[in-house]
Amino acid sequence: MDIKKVVQNVYDKVKGIDDKGNLASYIPELGNVNPDFFGVHISTIDHLNFGVGNSSDKFSIQSIVKVLSLIMAYRLLGEELWNRVKVEPSGTAFNSLIQLEVENGIPRNPFINAGALVIADILISNLRYPKEDFLNFVKKLSNSKEIRYSERIATSEKNVGYRNAALCNLIKSFGNIENNPSEVLDFYFNLCSLEMSCEDLSNLFLFLANDGFTLGDKQQILTRSQTKRINALMQTCGFYDESGEFAFKVGLPGKSGVGGGIVAVHPKQYAIAVWSPKLNEKGNSYKGVRFLEEFTTETELSIF
Amino acid sequence: MDIKKVVQNVYDKVKGIDDKGNLASYIPELGNVNPDFFGVHISTIDHLNFGVGNSSDKFSIQSIVKVLSLIMAYRLLGEELWNRVKVEPSGTAFNSLIQLEVENGIPRNPFINAGALVIADILISNLRYPKEDFLNFVKKLSNSKEIRYSERIATSEKNVGYRNAALCNLIKSFGNIENNPSEVLDFYFNLCSLEMSCEDLSNLFLFLANDGFTLGDKQQILTRSQTKRINALMQTCGFYDESGEFAFKVGLPGKSGVGGGIVAVHPKQYAIAVWSPKLNEKGNSYKGVRFLEEFTTETELSIF
Amino acid sequence: MDIKKVVQNVYDKVKGIDDKGNLASYIPELGNVNPDFFGVHISTIDHLNFGVGNSSDKFSIQSIVKVLSLIMAYRLLGEELWNRVKVEPSGTAFNSLIQLEVENGIPRNPFINAGALVIADILISNLRYPKEDFLNFVKKLSNSKEIRYSERIATSEKNVGYRNAALCNLIKSFGNIENNPSEVLDFYFNLCSLEMSCEDLSNLFLFLANDGFTLGDKQQILTRSQTKRINALMQTCGFYDESGEFAFKVGLPGKSGVGGGIVAVHPKQYAIAVWSPKLNEKGNSYKGVRFLEEFTTETELSIF
Amino acid sequence: MDIKKVVQNVYDKVKGIDDKGNLASYIPELGNVNPDFFGVHISTIDHLNFGVGNSSDKFSIQSIVKVLSLIMAYRLLGEELWNRVKVEPSGTAFNSLIQLEVENGIPRNPFINAGALVIADILISNLRYPKEDFLNFVKKLSNSKEIRYSERIATSEKNVGYRNAALCNLIKSFGNIENNPSEVLDFYFNLCSLEMSCEDLSNLFLFLANDGFTLGDKQQILTRSQTKRINALMQTCGFYDESGEFAFKVGLPGKSGVGGGIVAVHPKQYAIAVWSPKLNEKGNSYKGVRFLEEFTTETELSIF
Repeated sequence: MDIKKVVQNVYDKVKGIDDKGNLASYIPELGNVNPDFFGVHISTIDHLNFGVGNSSDKFSIQSIVKVLSLIMAYRLLGEELWNRVKVEPSGTAFNSLIQLEVENGIPRNPFINAGALVIADILISNLRYPKEDFLNFVKKLSNSKEIRYSERIATSEKNVGYRNAALCNLIKSFGNIENNPSEVLDFYFNLCSLEMSCEDLSNLFLFLANDGFTLGDKQQILTRSQTKRINALMQTCGFYDESGEFAFKVGLPGKSGVGGGIVAVHPKQYAIAVWSPKLNEKGNSYKGVRFLEEFTTETELSIF
Repeated sequence: MDIKKVVQNVYDKVKGIDDKGNLASYIPELGNVNPDFFGVHISTIDHLNFGVGNSSDKFSIQSIVKVLSLIMAYRLLGEELWNRVKVEPSGTAFNSLIQLEVENGIPRNPFINAGALVIADILISNLRYPKEDFLNFVKKLSNSKEIRYSERIATSEKNVGYRNAALCNLIKSFGNIENNPSEVLDFYFNLCSLEMSCEDLSNLFLFLANDGFTLGDKQQILTRSQTKRINALMQTCGFYDESGEFAFKVGLPGKSGVGGGIVAVHPKQYAIAVWSPKLNEKGNSYKGVRFLEEFTTETELSIF
Repeated sequence: MDIKKVVQNVYDKVKGIDDKGNLASYIPELGNVNPDFFGVHISTIDHLNFGVGNSSDKFSIQSIVKVLSLIMAYRLLGEELWNRVKVEPSGTAFNSLIQLEVENGIPRNPFINAGALVIADILISNLRYPKEDFLNFVKKLSNSKEIRYSERIATSEKNVGYRNAALCNLIKSFGNIENNPSEVLDFYFNLCSLEMSCEDLSNLFLFLANDGFTLGDKQQILTRSQTKRINALMQTCGFYDESGEFAFKVGLPGKSGVGGGIVAVHPKQYAIAVWSPKLNEKGNSYKGVRFLEEFTTETELSIF
Repeated sequence: MDIKKVVQNVYDKVKGIDDKGNLASYIPELGNVNPDFFGVHISTIDHLNFGVGNSSDKFSIQSIVKVLSLIMAYRLLGEELWNRVKVEPSGTAFNSLIQLEVENGIPRNPFINAGALVIADILISNLRYPKEDFLNFVKKLSNSKEIRYSERIATSEKNVGYRNAALCNLIKSFGNIENNPSEVLDFYFNLCSLEMSCEDLSNLFLFLANDGFTLGDKQQILTRSQTKRINALMQTCGFYDESGEFAFKVGLPGKSGVGGGIVAVHPKQYAIAVWSPKLNEKGNSYKGVRFLEEFTTETELSIF
């Protein structure tokens, strides 16, 4: 199978569909992006690298960063990490506050906001210069020097981030945040503001398809078992309240962000990143989900 | 790799561990089984069939039946089925009633009790002789003539089944149960009382590893895409409140029951059934989970 | 102050207002009543008895019966009663199922459906002929021989009573229902179908304004302290999710039903019953609430 | 009846009982008070003023201040106030966050923390110097010049006030807080730190028993109708999760604080303040509740 051709064909097909999604609106900055942008980049463990459309334009990766911060925290704390955050799907967003109450401030998984705040707290406690150290980690992993936080986006999110502040203070009240909530929130909003391209993301996530090793210099980022676990976690919890639907339709572990990006991993095969800013009603890229659905159907490759 | 040898070795190893589980106690009948029983049976698409220990003893499959009733309903209704039940993980049991309220009586997935009751309702509406027809379907799929409901177990569950009656009536109040609640409950308790062996289950589930086709007579039970979807659903929702943990540790789609049985599927490779009656605190077989964890580690086979 | 005159004046004034309420629609029978009916009856401890409009027409008292069944159960069990049901307001209807979960099947108060089901269960356990004995108790208290259950209403409610069946089974699963849920539900639906007039109700409730003694034959129905407690309970929990609003606007203990009836008690002074079938959005009689609001404003009598 | 004598007798009786309560422990400062302090002060509309025990010692009035801030906000906004906060009992503390979610950030009543935060926000928006202006209002109403905030208590609460910060940010996310959450929290913690004596409180609350007029200079603080409403609100919502129980046992409108103070009002008769620092399991003064229970039993005065 000519993967490039399949990517190109599916890209062309999905580019033409009527995009029923809407731009994220909760901060103005996310609404200012060109809604027609659409990019895809695939990286395979056979060293294929192929991009289409806006595949090298940077965009706000938003919640995709939760995988990156989790990986960094996992390297720092190992399995102890799971005392601070669980690995179970969370049900509806609606339940997030009540679940924290009932489960004593231990978030259900690291990909809901509550869990990502705990991970941010862990990084602050364990890194000398959290923002710089994290940025360097991401740059190195993606082999790209031009990744940066967007001050503008971070500030914008902070100005409307009252729900996250509520979550962070609630977790703190249970003792599962060590640092000052405002410091944790500041770092968290910075993380979410990271700007990367499909190419960057696809390159970065490839080690998760490669048993934990980077493809180029064969560095071990996570153990075989830890890699498997991150993939399992993306499978069960990567798409907010559409995780089951995504597993059902696409069948690959992955993670999406409200900036319109999605990264997916086919273990032993490839990582793929898609970006199109308009979101379906569950907050995942409309064309992104469609692309991956068609792509896994075409290639007949899926983990299931 | 000699699969038989691996199965035997892992079996021997896990057999010796200190079983920290407890027998299910909510109905006396489930507490009467020999706690030391332990069986495993694997069926591969390469026609390997191998059992160890109590692999051909019948036991109460309980919630594992939810996959079987779902498959039968899926065949009857096709994708329309998903108007009656969703495919998202459910969060905690604690939330099941409130989620039904908030989501207007549409259960989160077919493997929580609420969802399985809706599936039972669908079967009643669409089958002439629900109990007989369903039993015949299971017998045929597993290629075993000696499968039957346990009247004793069914009656026993009915006598304490007030929470299921609450769920069924609540869903009925939202209009998502068509038949009389007591008829639905009666059928549902019968389904859960089905008794099968590891061998039966492993044989039956093999078609899910084989793109929807039975291995022997190559009959298509589900389409390729439907098969993938059932596997995805078992992956995200198959283990109650331990689904994420199971994906995390074992990395295979599967389904467990409080009778101590677990079935797991490795797409394109095999189906495997394990049975050991003592349960961990999440209600899944203690030794069963351990066996599968060790087995996927040994074989280095996992979908992730 | 000439109470009759005030009653008449306020009646005339409220009769003319635009009734923004709607007939209860969940069972057809309640929707068949003449929406323009409007009656008031007051009974004072000074032996005044005065009715206006449809004050002697019978109507479905619905939830008002919850006070009557509570009184009978209170006489039977005394303070032990409060081990089975609490006396706290319940927040929203929305929360009723989750509250039962969190609070182990002990309803928040006897005036929400969950609590009234427990009271019904208590009566079944303690009365020889529950339906007859209860009816006789009500007849005697109201000094009226023509009170009866409406078979038609009871059957109608039973046919759509799935939510009550859900509640009853959930409480049973916690062990706080002794009898068979279907028997409890049957009795409960009968209770709610009781038909009485404003005159009957006002006469009956007068003992609550008279320290627990009937006015005529000076029989003690409840102790002084028990009487005070029933009044306090009506004050805090008598009007569903509008109890606070009613205390706020009317300032008297009372109880309403979806048949459009309201009874209120001014301790040491009077009992008053109002009936007008169209309900506000909280399920309380639109004109009934308005009447009582105007009446307590005019008389400047309120407990606060 | 000689009220002084009754107060003295009940005081003596309750002083001797075994106090099963515990000092509030969530901030160390509240735990430092002498657990044996016990004071009562009554002020009647007949100009009786009588205190026993530690009736003129100042203590931290904590949540009692919520009535005072509500009164001030009510004077400023009139009935418009009720667009920002409702008047319904709240069910359990457990539900406070979920209720805010379901009810879009409009707190159930002004006496739960969520509601008191909204009231604090209103005062900040409408007062030039919120802290000073509020303090002057309280001083004037209680006719006492020596009332002050406790910096120490306020700081202490702020340091552990993460749950209040969670509430405040959640309400802000719904748009029902106008000012900066940290400013609102700072003001709120100051309010709660107010220190007053039983005598101060009893004098201040007397106008609520006097149709809204102060007794001395006959100034109208609230209208007749507003007064009645504040009393009704204290009746239904004044005692956290024990409001129903308190209405049930004592039968007077009132408000308690975790500093061990309770104020109660008998309309047309008196205001009474009790203070004893050890709390029952619901967070209300153990001896305080007992005193009022005995006192209303002795006097046979109750609104019910």
